[in-house]
Amino acid sequence: MTERNRKVLLASRPQAAVTEQNFRIVDVPLPKPAAGEVLVRNEWLSLDPYMRGRMSDAKSYVPPAQLDEVMVGQTVGEVIDSRDPTIDIGDKVLTQLGWQSHGIAKAADVTRIDARHVPASCYLGVLGMPGLTAWFGLFEIGQPKAGETVLVSAASGAVGSVVGQLAKVHGCRAVGIAGGKAKCDYVVNELGFDACVDHRAGSLYEDLRAACPDGVDVDFENVGGAVLDTALRLMNRHSRVVICGLIAEYGAKEPYGYERLRSVLVNRIRMQGMIVFDWKDRYGEALPTLTSYVTDGKLKYRESIVEGLDNAPRGLIALLKGENFGKQLVRIA
Amino acid sequence: MTERNRKVLLASRPQAAVTEQNFRIVDVPLPKPAAGEVLVRNEWLSLDPYMRGRMSDAKSYVPPAQLDEVMVGQTVGEVIDSRDPTIDIGDKVLTQLGWQSHGIAKAADVTRIDARHVPASCYLGVLGMPGLTAWFGLFEIGQPKAGETVLVSAASGAVGSVVGQLAKVHGCRAVGIAGGKAKCDYVVNELGFDACVDHRAGSLYEDLRAACPDGVDVDFENVGGAVLDTALRLMNRHSRVVICGLIAEYGAKEPYGYERLRSVLVNRIRMQGMIVFDWKDRYGEALPTLTSYVTDGKLKYRESIVEGLDNAPRGLIALLKGENFGKQLVRIA
Repeated sequence: MTERNRKVLLASRPQAAVTEQNFRIVDVPLPKPAAGEVLVRNEWLSLDPYMRGRMSDAKSYVPPAQLDEVMVGQTVGEVIDSRDPTIDIGDKVLTQLGWQSHGIAKAADVTRIDARHVPASCYLGVLGMPGLTAWFGLFEIGQPKAGETVLVSAASGAVGSVVGQLAKVHGCRAVGIAGGKAKCDYVVNELGFDACVDHRAGSLYEDLRAACPDGVDVDFENVGGAVLDTALRLMNRHSRVVICGLIAEYGAKEPYGYERLRSVLVNRIRMQGMIVFDWKDRYGEALPTLTSYVTDGKLKYRESIVEGLDNAPRGLIALLKGENFGKQLVRIA
Repeated sequence: MTERNRKVLLASRPQAAVTEQNFRIVDVPLPKPAAGEVLVRNEWLSLDPYMRGRMSDAKSYVPPAQLDEVMVGQTVGEVIDSRDPTIDIGDKVLTQLGWQSHGIAKAADVTRIDARHVPASCYLGVLGMPGLTAWFGLFEIGQPKAGETVLVSAASGAVGSVVGQLAKVHGCRAVGIAGGKAKCDYVVNELGFDACVDHRAGSLYEDLRAACPDGVDVDFENVGGAVLDTALRLMNRHSRVVICGLIAEYGAKEPYGYERLRSVLVNRIRMQGMIVFDWKDRYGEALPTLTSYVTDGKLKYRESIVEGLDNAPRGLIALLKGENFGKQLVRIA
């Protein structure tokens, strides 16, 4: 059977929560690379919370995904045809080909990866955007000192799990927030956080206060909403809040009303939004250390795998509901 | 008639808005300085929004004012008795003697001021905490570049008026927010801001958008509430928000719910709370330049004067309602 190029298109923009009806699947013939281009067979697609933002046409930090076009996303795959001398057939590459089985990329837009010592899928997680987000957000914005308390929401997720482990390596107390006992147990027992609070237990403030007896010096915020508002009650003087994600707000019909902003004044908090692309010229500073932490076993990770491109919409929907457990991937081939 | 020491005490803590019943006036004999102390006859008392916070016992950046004690505040006065060799009778001094006609201070806790070239009251305003707040908040946190747009709320007030004028000297576009046409006219015509928006006009977002055609790079926030939430809609990528005051929240029964925090993420805003005391070791960096700006006429100021200590409570209540126009002072003697 001839290989076909399966694509998941953005069919409509969600009004609130994402549904499977927002996507449409089509099959087209395989494209052919022009000079300077390569044809890639995608093996892994990364699913990430930021995708919810790209599905909307509200102003954001990058233009929205376009209707009737392939849904955007980062992928890892193998080059199966090359018309560029710098890239060979068989090379494993990291690209932005989106939700499709194959795609054409300019040679300049692909990054060759070394999958000999770590699995290729790592380049979408602990060594990819999530890991780099954790690194630059924690060290450049959070600026933790040894002995300080670092609080991380979505602590079992792709970014949060790296933040807490880096904080531990750095000599900090790492406290996670996650949904449900299984995730909290994983965060403490497998990832080595000092504590993890279940935000579904109904006593977030009291539980966080108990887990952070010296207050919070760095809040690495992936969730927002009531989780952030509660964290603001525990922030220390001259503490830092890294606003990395506000997943609690993404599908909400009404914006959340934050009532604890006064803490920013009283405690002279520095709160800063971050997007990892702002550090793209500096990824090389972080990757050797991150890679060594992975191969040394200092940086553990967990993947939540959806089988088959057709199931990518369901995977994203589950991710946005917090049903994933670890880095969410789609195995395409 | 023998001089008596009149004191305004904090009689009770306000539940919401401050009332005159929260204060009580008493007269006591003049105290006598011990060795190393001076007796000061206060001439000017500064009234400032932060005082609302000191009247509450909620956690804040300094301990609250104590019930049945003199209400706290900064004062300028003349030394009328000295038991310290470094300070002479007749010296003009800046102290923290609070709401009273006289007071004893340790020589180490008073700052001698030079009232030959600028009026003594300046040391409570443009050359005092408000001026220093403007300087360090704007330059150290706001970090404006020439050509950028600096937005300032409470623009006719003691802090805001200095922020906008410093921004202009620095080559920025200065846009104010103030309450009412008279204040807006003053901000533009006297202080030299490029524009000033009346927050009472009912079209704050539209008016700010018109006044800031290139968006906002620095928001120097003195007001908070809907003013800050609206400013967040106009902030540029990598812009800065200086949280200096949240006067809109101070007397409110319910906390304000900020709905635009997502802008911090999308635009990678750096939002930071500030209290001028954090820079107290660096006041000397700012004062020579601020003083030269005042004597050169580059830095204009306006004072709103309440006559007599007995009227200080009324003055604070008016200030918290935004009824003052310029730096609010009480003339004690």
